[in-house]
This record gives sequence, C-alpha cells and structure tokens, in this order.
Amino acid sequence: MNTKMPLLKVVNELSKLPGIGEKTATRLAFHILKSPQVYAHALSEAIRELKEKIKLCSVCFDLTERDLCGICADLRRSKATVCVVEEPQDLLAVEKTRVYDGQYHILHGTLSPICGIGPDQLKIRELIERLRDSAVHEIILATNPTVEGEATALYLIKLLRPFPLKLTRIAHGVPTGGDLEYIDAVTIGNAIKNRVTI
Amino acid sequence: MNTKMPLLKVVNELSKLPGIGEKTATRLAFHILKSPQVYAHALSEAIRELKEKIKLCSVCFDLTERDLCGICADLRRSKATVCVVEEPQDLLAVEKTRVYDGQYHILHGTLSPICGIGPDQLKIRELIERLRDSAVHEIILATNPTVEGEATALYLIKLLRPFPLKLTRIAHGVPTGGDLEYIDAVTIGNAIKNRVTI
Repeated sequence: MNTKMPLLKVVNELSKLPGIGEKTATRLAFHILKSPQVYAHALSEAIRELKEKIKLCSVCFDLTERDLCGICADLRRSKATVCVVEEPQDLLAVEKTRVYDGQYHILHGTLSPICGIGPDQLKIRELIERLRDSAVHEIILATNPTVEGEATALYLIKLLRPFPLKLTRIAHGVPTGGDLEYIDAVTIGNAIKNRVTI
Repeated sequence: MNTKMPLLKVVNELSKLPGIGEKTATRLAFHILKSPQVYAHALSEAIRELKEKIKLCSVCFDLTERDLCGICADLRRSKATVCVVEEPQDLLAVEKTRVYDGQYHILHGTLSPICGIGPDQLKIRELIERLRDSAVHEIILATNPTVEGEATALYLIKLLRPFPLKLTRIAHGVPTGGDLEYIDAVTIGNAIKNRVTI
C-alpha cells in the first residue's frame, strides 16, 4: 500500500476540505490522476500561489495581490460611501449586483462571544481609523441577516453614531423571486415592518 | 477583479473536477485561503507529486511509485491466481476485503465499441503475455457487473479458454448495475469467496 503514498496523500489532503469526504476525495484524486499532466500542474500551482500571492488590502482588507486592492485603487469609484461586509465573499456578492460603486470595508468575521471573537479580532478599529480623515459620508452596514451579523451591525451602529455620518443598513425583506408561502415568518414580518410607501 | 487572479485561478481549476461547480469551487478556494499556509502547501505538493511520481506497474499495471508495485513485489502473496479488474480503484476495493492474497491485472477500462475502446486499448495483450510462462493456475474475472464489464468478461473468457487454466468469475452476489469502487467490503468479499467455475 505504501507504494501508493502520493495517491493517499492527495486523498488525505482533499478530505480536509469542507464537504469532501474520503470517497469524494478518492474520486477526485483518481480524476486528477487520469487527467493530463498539465491539469494537475495548473491546479497545484494555482493552490500554491493562492496563499503565497494573496494578501489583504491595506485600506479595505479585501483580498488582493498588491498593497491596494483594485476597488480602492479605482479612482472612478465614489469615495463617499463605505459598504461594511463580513467576508470577501460578501463583497463579491455585492459587486455582482452592479448596483454599488462605492468603497468597501471587510470585517473578516462577526462578533461571536461564544467563539471568543470580540471587536479586537475584527477589522473594526481599522474602520474607525479610516473614517477619521476621509471623504466618507455614508456607511452601509451589509453584514449578513443572521444573529451574529445583526449583533455586529448593532455594535457598529453604537460605535459609529458619534461620527457625522449617514448610517444605513441593507433592507430586510422578501427575496426577489421568492414565494410568500415558503418564506419564513420572521422574514415576512420584517418585510411588513419595513414596508415602503409607493 | 484582476487583482484577485490567484483566487479565480484556483476556482477555475477546481471547478474542472467532477461534481464541483463554481459555487463549491469558490467555497473550497476561500477555505484554502483561510487555512494555514502549511495546508495549502501540502495540498499543492500532493497534487504535483501525484502525476509526477505515480506510474504503472510493469507486471499488473496497478499504480505504483516504483517499477514493480507492492503487490507484485510481495513474495508472500500467491502467484497462482490473477484477479482481473477494470481500474486501480477496483483493486483497492478487493484488497479492502482481505479475502484475496493473489495477484492482480488491471485492464484500465472495459470494451466499449461505442466509445471506440477495443481490446487493443486495454491491457489484454499484456495479460496474455503474462500467462505464457507463469505459475498462474486461475484467472478470476472481477470486472464490474455492468454491461461493459460483463462484455469484457465474456471477451476474456473466449480469449482465455485455450489456456490450461481455471477460469472463474466473481459471484453475482454483487448488485447488478453497481460499481466495485462503491460496494461495501463484505459484499465484495462474499462475491470472491462464492466465485463459480465457468
């Protein structure tokens, strides 16, 4: 069996990924083995470069290869608004909408006393520092509509209230394309509370 | 967006794997990014080594790092029996049962006229050559209980009939339409124990 160490190693490493068990890992490893050398090489290189090349933007803490991320460096984007999100994935989700053209700030997590994550573990101090001498007029709190996300938003509202800023929170309502019959009561409740005049 | 090329590259390469779509690939890429550097390095190295180090055993065509695989090199294993399987995964599945201690021969596929796979694309010629001057007394046909596997077994039966050999087929205790790779060890073990002379 130890003559197949390279295979077992790949299975072992792949099965550490979320949602990948030993059987899936084995299937993937055999797939890589049957693929052309060039694919295995590309995959291996891409993974190696991921950790080596990607760092955090010194302003918004999004992932970037340079000191300043593409969004922060883009002079065409408005400097008046900062959208605060939990993770880089959330930034991508907002960017996909093509509705927003301001700045971002990535917290890299949410407040979670149970997991021992307090304000110091998030990029909150950096957000405050960023606001001190900037042209920011509005902060959009776009943390997730979960218990932790709401708690983090509430904490930030308290913290940011003294600043001469417009503070907003993304709307909580029924998702577009959804069906009232299948949407949970809390969501519908919020949608009714937050109804807008037309 | 192009400042995140390393991330997009990983997503792109991962989504070429079977059963991994763009969303799963993105989730995995972010997981790798959040993992310690040592994990990304281990995964990258394991994948690189997989294609570089693994080749086929010169006797049974199983995957191996050396010229001769561990099973062929193992002098304690019986040389009298050769178990013919489709893929290296199938060998692993048979080995797991701990019922069999003979040799193997990997065909690396099944006859499939539709896909243009004839006897020449499989390691059939090599099997015949291997039988010419050897101590083999029995060939166990352990191709999968699928249409292609059965067809390949039938072809091999015709081909091997002239040889002074005992020809056996694993018992059809295994559920028809299944794949050895995914069947539990007990079922496969029983199928080997109950093999019938043909």
